[in-house]
Amino acid sequence: MSNSLGEKFRITSFGESHGKCVGVVIDGCPSGLSLSEDDIQPELNRRRPGQSQITTKRQEEDQVEILSGVFNGYTTGAPICMLIWNKDVDSTKYELFRDVPRPGHADFTARQKYGGFNDYRGGGRFSGRITASFVMAGAVARKLLRDVLNVDITAHTIEIGGIKAKKIEDISLIKKNVEKTPIRTADLETAEKMIELVIQAENEGDSIGGIIECIVTNVPIGLGEPIFSSLESDISKAIFSIPAVKGIEFGAGFRVSRMKGSENNDKFTFKNGQILTKTNNAGGILGGISTGMPITFRIAIKPTASITKKQESVSISEKKETELQIEGRHDPCIVPRAVPVVESMTAMVLADHAIRYNVIPPVIRRMTS
Amino acid sequence: MSNSLGEKFRITSFGESHGKCVGVVIDGCPSGLSLSEDDIQPELNRRRPGQSQITTKRQEEDQVEILSGVFNGYTTGAPICMLIWNKDVDSTKYELFRDVPRPGHADFTARQKYGGFNDYRGGGRFSGRITASFVMAGAVARKLLRDVLNVDITAHTIEIGGIKAKKIEDISLIKKNVEKTPIRTADLETAEKMIELVIQAENEGDSIGGIIECIVTNVPIGLGEPIFSSLESDISKAIFSIPAVKGIEFGAGFRVSRMKGSENNDKFTFKNGQILTKTNNAGGILGGISTGMPITFRIAIKPTASITKKQESVSISEKKETELQIEGRHDPCIVPRAVPVVESMTAMVLADHAIRYNVIPPVIRRMTS
Amino acid sequence: MSNSLGEKFRITSFGESHGKCVGVVIDGCPSGLSLSEDDIQPELNRRRPGQSQITTKRQEEDQVEILSGVFNGYTTGAPICMLIWNKDVDSTKYELFRDVPRPGHADFTARQKYGGFNDYRGGGRFSGRITASFVMAGAVARKLLRDVLNVDITAHTIEIGGIKAKKIEDISLIKKNVEKTPIRTADLETAEKMIELVIQAENEGDSIGGIIECIVTNVPIGLGEPIFSSLESDISKAIFSIPAVKGIEFGAGFRVSRMKGSENNDKFTFKNGQILTKTNNAGGILGGISTGMPITFRIAIKPTASITKKQESVSISEKKETELQIEGRHDPCIVPRAVPVVESMTAMVLADHAIRYNVIPPVIRRMTS
Amino acid sequence: MSNSLGEKFRITSFGESHGKCVGVVIDGCPSGLSLSEDDIQPELNRRRPGQSQITTKRQEEDQVEILSGVFNGYTTGAPICMLIWNKDVDSTKYELFRDVPRPGHADFTARQKYGGFNDYRGGGRFSGRITASFVMAGAVARKLLRDVLNVDITAHTIEIGGIKAKKIEDISLIKKNVEKTPIRTADLETAEKMIELVIQAENEGDSIGGIIECIVTNVPIGLGEPIFSSLESDISKAIFSIPAVKGIEFGAGFRVSRMKGSENNDKFTFKNGQILTKTNNAGGILGGISTGMPITFRIAIKPTASITKKQESVSISEKKETELQIEGRHDPCIVPRAVPVVESMTAMVLADHAIRYNVIPPVIRRMTS
Repeated sequence: MSNSLGEKFRITSFGESHGKCVGVVIDGCPSGLSLSEDDIQPELNRRRPGQSQITTKRQEEDQVEILSGVFNGYTTGAPICMLIWNKDVDSTKYELFRDVPRPGHADFTARQKYGGFNDYRGGGRFSGRITASFVMAGAVARKLLRDVLNVDITAHTIEIGGIKAKKIEDISLIKKNVEKTPIRTADLETAEKMIELVIQAENEGDSIGGIIECIVTNVPIGLGEPIFSSLESDISKAIFSIPAVKGIEFGAGFRVSRMKGSENNDKFTFKNGQILTKTNNAGGILGGISTGMPITFRIAIKPTASITKKQESVSISEKKETELQIEGRHDPCIVPRAVPVVESMTAMVLADHAIRYNVIPPVIRRMTS
Repeated sequence: MSNSLGEKFRITSFGESHGKCVGVVIDGCPSGLSLSEDDIQPELNRRRPGQSQITTKRQEEDQVEILSGVFNGYTTGAPICMLIWNKDVDSTKYELFRDVPRPGHADFTARQKYGGFNDYRGGGRFSGRITASFVMAGAVARKLLRDVLNVDITAHTIEIGGIKAKKIEDISLIKKNVEKTPIRTADLETAEKMIELVIQAENEGDSIGGIIECIVTNVPIGLGEPIFSSLESDISKAIFSIPAVKGIEFGAGFRVSRMKGSENNDKFTFKNGQILTKTNNAGGILGGISTGMPITFRIAIKPTASITKKQESVSISEKKETELQIEGRHDPCIVPRAVPVVESMTAMVLADHAIRYNVIPPVIRRMTS
Repeated sequence: MSNSLGEKFRITSFGESHGKCVGVVIDGCPSGLSLSEDDIQPELNRRRPGQSQITTKRQEEDQVEILSGVFNGYTTGAPICMLIWNKDVDSTKYELFRDVPRPGHADFTARQKYGGFNDYRGGGRFSGRITASFVMAGAVARKLLRDVLNVDITAHTIEIGGIKAKKIEDISLIKKNVEKTPIRTADLETAEKMIELVIQAENEGDSIGGIIECIVTNVPIGLGEPIFSSLESDISKAIFSIPAVKGIEFGAGFRVSRMKGSENNDKFTFKNGQILTKTNNAGGILGGISTGMPITFRIAIKPTASITKKQESVSISEKKETELQIEGRHDPCIVPRAVPVVESMTAMVLADHAIRYNVIPPVIRRMTS
Repeated sequence: MSNSLGEKFRITSFGESHGKCVGVVIDGCPSGLSLSEDDIQPELNRRRPGQSQITTKRQEEDQVEILSGVFNGYTTGAPICMLIWNKDVDSTKYELFRDVPRPGHADFTARQKYGGFNDYRGGGRFSGRITASFVMAGAVARKLLRDVLNVDITAHTIEIGGIKAKKIEDISLIKKNVEKTPIRTADLETAEKMIELVIQAENEGDSIGGIIECIVTNVPIGLGEPIFSSLESDISKAIFSIPAVKGIEFGAGFRVSRMKGSENNDKFTFKNGQILTKTNNAGGILGGISTGMPITFRIAIKPTASITKKQESVSISEKKETELQIEGRHDPCIVPRAVPVVESMTAMVLADHAIRYNVIPPVIRRMTS
């Protein structure tokens, strides 16, 4: 397993879905950042199950506890360990899936890889619940980026089960609208249709997927360490750590395959003495390095693998095909809960690069007395 | 800069487009692999400029030289340094681009990031020529995967400027056809139309992009180190190191956003005593770990940034807008030359994971005398 | 800060002396290792304060709790988080040391480096208490080495305040004796004199240091990854993470500077069909790689920096010299408590290398049902 | 193998003793450093064989060639590849050592580890010649430290075969004297006796070892990243990469084991408004972090393993003991040639830490036009 990410702002995730806790250690957070549980809890609440009618009915408190690295309200430079304790756990039904792996889940591959010793309860280490550790670390990264550089990160739902949100150019409007609807789209009209589709899928014992867009503004020029730590490389690596992501595209993305060079190349211009580009097909990144324009990317989220419809699978011990039915409380559409996770991964990558390139220094302020 | 990739099969790339050479060091290649320049040169030839009517007319020999790590025809376990010497270099025209950055290129971001000291000639470290170092290292990784595990990697063009190749299900047919046409598509009929479009773009002083698909067969079950070194994470990180890539999707990719869970989940079944899935929407990866099914992904390649049409840019020194015209010999469509590069990056990631998971041991054979 | 160590068996330490806890995450422990708190607690008890008349009188329970990575009595392949909760903490007296740094401690350097935000209570992250996290991780590494490879690691005190233990050649006698006396020397006669010296130093309000030797037997041939991850390199890096270590030497160590090549070179010979060396001046390592002979090294431990005698220091705020007196309960000689810490660091390095060289596989056993 | 060292100033070494070349790639050198072969050659000359009567008579030109990363006289931020081509190579005599391993060399362990495929000629990858790659990289690190921070690194011989140099307190005198004698000691009187001892050992077909001290001045306060990347940890790791090193001690070193805390603790004081310590038993490092006092350490170098005296060994193929005689030209004492290598390793570690702590920024100057 490889449970650490980042080079200078480096996180190590631990914990299992139905174990004692889910946690994370951040190594490399600069000293002098004002930080408390209150900075982290709101982000966790946005990821929490049971937050609306279209998420799983499981109730998890997900109350963050900081165990180390913060003293008198500020980060000390020492590793920050944070965790949430697990509650409301029912593991009985998972034993079956050791022998009859759930389609679309890691039951089969994890069993093979770890010789049968993996904690299969609730998906164990492969549960979406592990992303709570990403959100805790991401909340710290976000605060660091905001306090030192005024960087802003916003993700929002732009497609659900084929229903596309209307394109909104005004980023401030996106920010304003996104938390107004549980589906987390900025297009409030279309939101209702998306929600209906989710409820319909749930009623059918099925699930649906969607597309999330992420926009980062106020990015300093020069982040990204080519050729192998380009911003695209490091963002995509981080994003694919989120279960259910199957694709990512930056800027114009897959559309570039149908564009001419003369259309796709973003023309340089001056605005208020600063060099900008007139369009942003590059998604704010040239040569793997931030241009100062907004970083934009979109990711594809698959429909939740856990559905209550009967499914075909195999019994490993009996070496034959069989049927499987998953009970319980699962999100019919994970997209809205994935939104804060996408923001968190993005924040971690950018904080890491900002420290690597030293636009965030190792000590962000000095104590005066 | 961050010019190393991989954990156990670790490459370090060096060199510039118009410097003395482009090279690579591989650290961690197991000992006992039969290897010589003859194993590497054919892959370089597939990437080489001037190989067909639709690639740049620049002639570069790109003759590989192994400097270390191979003795008596076998790898020794020591680092393998390989390089190609640069020739046919004309750097005079690039000085202009220091002040007037080319749209779609890294001229602007590199200048900002390195304080003006970057080698701008031919794009320097940001040139597509740097991918020759990927291909040299990739050739070693491929041989290792093939000799020890019989893994096979094939990439092919599936779309050019909006023209889609016909979907071919039979992987062996893809392999058979792909090198028959300079556009590297397996659909030989559509190939001609794609080539025409490329030539037309060139005649217009413009360029076009496309989509490449990569298919890997015979992958052992269990490769991938979740949660942060999943196969998707590490493949995407490697692929985005190739200049011009703007998107990647695995298996059903962005289509998952429009599928139901019951459609997207691949049903498990038995075939010849082995557990397979009936479909492969997952692209051979579940929970970040290989399932044994073919690994499949698609990537979007942007139209070549260098076009001969006049373009709008700025003069940095004069702080005003200006026009720019790029002369010289550039690929009107980089897609076919990117095909072997995509295979190379994939090979490196899989070799790295195969060593990490120890299905390729540190010594692949022992000398008998 | 850099709080991770190891490449494949990788630990991340967290926690502070007077914070909530001291803990560690192990990433990369193979699955299938039988493990519980009972495997770890005995090692912690050997490090625990208050265990004998010659250690600090502070009482700390140091009860280990495993938070993740173990399921049904076996490691799962997921990260193992373990911690001890802090108790019996009195932080009031430490506030003074922010302004008047204690000689021999990190008060001054930590304050400078972290801008004054470091948790200074009890030395914070620089306390010897942090080595509890090493011991927890080391206990897992030891069990892994013992269960899979039968590797045995023994450290023992060979010098205290200038009093040398008698040289004992028989390693099994060392193992047998070392825990019989609180000073942890195998020479039971000299032990009494050493203990007297420690008590005398304590009575004087002073402290003394000493030398520890570590011996590892049953090491497989071939561990060590030259040129930069030689066994000497990685062991020394790990050992110098223990506060108070000021020197390390392998095999004949500093004595080699006075030997001829013909004396120092260990002659090869055969014994029971195996290649051994007649002497072991190399300390079981040639070219950075284990020879199969016992690995031996010695380390110098400085006298405890905390003494109750008055000391000269400065007031940073007043920019002048001043006096300082440290109260409280400190070890007059840290050497015996460092013995299990030395073993732990050694175990971690060797487990890491055994996994890297794959003599310990990623899955050490497969579940049968 | 693990042939990379450092985190931000990261070197990758390649090449073999009797292969085509010995080289190194530096990844992470800041842009804007003035650099040419003339900055590197003098350091290589200090390491070069044949430089005096007491070094091996082999003549190697060791002419450095920079292949990448430097443009118009300045570093560009791109990887710097440098190498020396091998000449004057006679490999015939080494074939014997595959079967009859030389005592004190890596012949036996390398053969076992790499399955017999290692390049054994001249010791291959285990030759002292590989340290030329360290010296090339070290020369760049030194220049960076000197140009940006005025850090100065001086190593000198303090003991040869038991003959101790007189202790010289004045660092500037050490610097002045050290290159005046081929044995590289600052005590010019004792130098003659040391040289006689070396010549005597050579005449006997034997070899001798010694001790080197390294002193670094003008070190900024705050370098070192505890707990696992303390300065002691990273310096010792780097130093043990030099073949023949068997011990290292910082500051008072092994002497601390015989000191009281009240003697060993360095008292803080003010001098010209700066906080210093009255003594420097800590060797300039507290809590793994630089104090601003000179960093001092000493290392033990074993007698050269290659001696012309007959030695006992084994024939691996015949499974029996046999005798071995090494012919050719070897250093009877490697200590003086190791002096620049010790400085080089130290420079690399400190440059790496200075970049990590950002007292050396990623761009050390900006181009004005």
